Amino acid sequence: MTTIDATHDPTLESWVASANAADTDFPLQNLPFGRFRRADDSDWCIGVAVGDQVLDLRQAGLVDGADMNRLMRLAAEPRKALRHAISEGLREGSAMRSRFEPALVAQSEVEMGVPCDVRDYTDFYVGIHHATAVGKLFRPDNPLLPNYKHVPIGYHGRASTINASGHDFRRPAGQLMPPGATQPELKACERLDYELELGIFIGRPNPQGVPIPMEQAEEHVFGIALFNDWSARDIQSWEYQPLGPFLSKNFASTVSPWIVTTEALAPFRRAFERPAGDPQPLPYLDSEANRAQGAIDIGLEAWLQTPAMRAAGHAGDCIARSNYAQVAYWTMAQLVAHHTVNGCSLGAGDLLGSGTLSGPGPGQCGSLLEATQGGKQALTLSNGEQRTFLQDGDAIILKGYCSRDGLRRIGFGECRATVLPYSS
Amino acid sequence: MTTIDATHDPTLESWVASANAADTDFPLQNLPFGRFRRADDSDWCIGVAVGDQVLDLRQAGLVDGADMNRLMRLAAEPRKALRHAISEGLREGSAMRSRFEPALVAQSEVEMGVPCDVRDYTDFYVGIHHATAVGKLFRPDNPLLPNYKHVPIGYHGRASTINASGHDFRRPAGQLMPPGATQPELKACERLDYELELGIFIGRPNPQGVPIPMEQAEEHVFGIALFNDWSARDIQSWEYQPLGPFLSKNFASTVSPWIVTTEALAPFRRAFERPAGDPQPLPYLDSEANRAQGAIDIGLEAWLQTPAMRAAGHAGDCIARSNYAQVAYWTMAQLVAHHTVNGCSLGAGDLLGSGTLSGPGPGQCGSLLEATQGGKQALTLSNGEQRTFLQDGDAIILKGYCSRDGLRRIGFGECRATVLPYSS
Repeated sequence: MTTIDATHDPTLESWVASANAADTDFPLQNLPFGRFRRADDSDWCIGVAVGDQVLDLRQAGLVDGADMNRLMRLAAEPRKALRHAISEGLREGSAMRSRFEPALVAQSEVEMGVPCDVRDYTDFYVGIHHATAVGKLFRPDNPLLPNYKHVPIGYHGRASTINASGHDFRRPAGQLMPPGATQPELKACERLDYELELGIFIGRPNPQGVPIPMEQAEEHVFGIALFNDWSARDIQSWEYQPLGPFLSKNFASTVSPWIVTTEALAPFRRAFERPAGDPQPLPYLDSEANRAQGAIDIGLEAWLQTPAMRAAGHAGDCIARSNYAQVAYWTMAQLVAHHTVNGCSLGAGDLLGSGTLSGPGPGQCGSLLEATQGGKQALTLSNGEQRTFLQDGDAIILKGYCSRDGLRRIGFGECRATVLPYSS
Repeated sequence: MTTIDATHDPTLESWVASANAADTDFPLQNLPFGRFRRADDSDWCIGVAVGDQVLDLRQAGLVDGADMNRLMRLAAEPRKALRHAISEGLREGSAMRSRFEPALVAQSEVEMGVPCDVRDYTDFYVGIHHATAVGKLFRPDNPLLPNYKHVPIGYHGRASTINASGHDFRRPAGQLMPPGATQPELKACERLDYELELGIFIGRPNPQGVPIPMEQAEEHVFGIALFNDWSARDIQSWEYQPLGPFLSKNFASTVSPWIVTTEALAPFRRAFERPAGDPQPLPYLDSEANRAQGAIDIGLEAWLQTPAMRAAGHAGDCIARSNYAQVAYWTMAQLVAHHTVNGCSLGAGDLLGSGTLSGPGPGQCGSLLEATQGGKQALTLSNGEQRTFLQDGDAIILKGYCSRDGLRRIGFGECRATVLPYSS
């Protein structure tokens, strides 16, 4: 695991004034990576967020070219050296200021893309409260399947429809079997939902046939972004037997633009403990370091903004709050070790969705399926509107942040998209 | 659908003598596309198989560059023009011979790769006899789930571990719950299986949000190859609930090197009919052209060569014979229309596995799971050896061909790989 070093010093200030604001997601201690382009330029560039600015890494002389996946493949030492070079160059009083300053562009002036070229995308199911709540809708007496506490359950998703934050998408149509019907029909989805997830980006690849052991697993993780795994529940319930979700998920997913690196997250690691009485993980999913600090304390929020709220200038209601460390039954290292134990190869830029990160209580449900108990109990919003599932024009905004006394707050930016009406 | 034209004329002969042999897979009427490299050259080139030779398309002046996916994106007219130019140049008496001849290289002297860059891979489940036989192992009285005859069932697979024919792979390990055990364990797979499939390659892409209707679906298919979806049955049975197969499939898949184009397959189209009494497909999965000629008559074989057979110079036993047209419940056009009905985007080079194409009778089972009734009844091979599942050193060789009286036989080459021992 990465260690806490000088780049985390909370007293560090930047000559980029906006990075010193108490409420910025992107202080000097964060330095997340993303891909941006200027309005008049169709090529993606590699950037690092600092306050309300983006540092163009090529223009600053810190990288050659604009291949984010190549940057993500870097080994631990050159990665760390790059972080230090960026951190030092942006510090108040740095001699590099004259070189870096012309490489800054305002975030408001650029378009952000999917942060890297995602080749393979896997979605896991590590949120045990989500798995339990969803299982309860189908099997009230036996919500968790027998494999859940032994196997980090996951399945492959569609890489081609992973969108950048801000890219809106049309409500999908699909084949449905409405309750009580005897014939399926093709209809626009009526139970459109979101899922509050984190997206874990792979850095260093492994060759096919060579598993990654727990002890090395975190070296293969580049960092984490916010991830919304939009879900069409009515399509899902009719199609998913026996091979799992397919068209109910692959119409669109949304990822936030900034990958917060494992280096930036180092001060927010926590012990990872299983509840008393739960089975211990098999040795290939266990390590001392994982028990000591496998969890990461990331606060998560999902916001819903309806068209009426937007018209009224209202930013939306926070409909779910949760915390990664508190609700994930499996750590990043366990996902990487499990995914490769059979020899499966992971590539730089591959994305591992965490699965929905719901907490156990009310107000902690990371999907409407859970919050409304399968659509039975509508949510009442602050302006009196009600929702079971998403309506056209609704936007979901995910947010995330790490905070701890004595440290600068590390934010994830936002992951936002709006549901456009179905169009045949 | 593509039509029968001069390139299919069975009387056409080539100045490449081996293409005129009665038993070649690659007569002048076939012209499948693949990627090859010469032993002393690390760059992949685009080639077309003709007899025992490969025509280097760039060297022959027929394409610029070596980007197969770009070639696959071609619209119907330029694709057809390319086929005609290759066909005419290779014909006996062609004036192009002096230009093409230096662009020939013997197949025995080149390495064949995965035929294109596969970004997203989906595996379907169109073999109704396979779905029934596998379902029967779990639910004897109700083998087919209620959605099967309405929904072309599919799920996303792993693109990173799709291997070229001839690329051997190690037996995977995985988490298993042996029958009767109370604790899972990590072990080398003991129920390693193959699956006899076809791989359908997408040519023209569709943008996200824009479904491909049935009438246009076949224009988006470039062609077909053989595909082996290796499966670890013991890993599968423990992991697959509730989100489908994952590590039981993604350790390796094998694809044959030559994509037989839909143009070459045109003379082997057949009417596509559902058994009497079965539900008709929903309108978005139905078209007149699909009913008239949605099926393709492709004979399929799976061969098993054990190490003892190899030592004795024995090519192996044919353990399964089947026919795509006779066993597929859904056509290529239906897979494309279904996959995109929700707005999912398909890209050039994307791969759709058909699912296991078993016939209903003995000797027609495209997996050992079916042939041995879940491992209960061993197969006895021609040399007296027995198999329930695959042993180390076993090779599986898939073959395919189209034949019809009065036409040249169109072959698919072979899809081969050998199981290497597990190594921790």
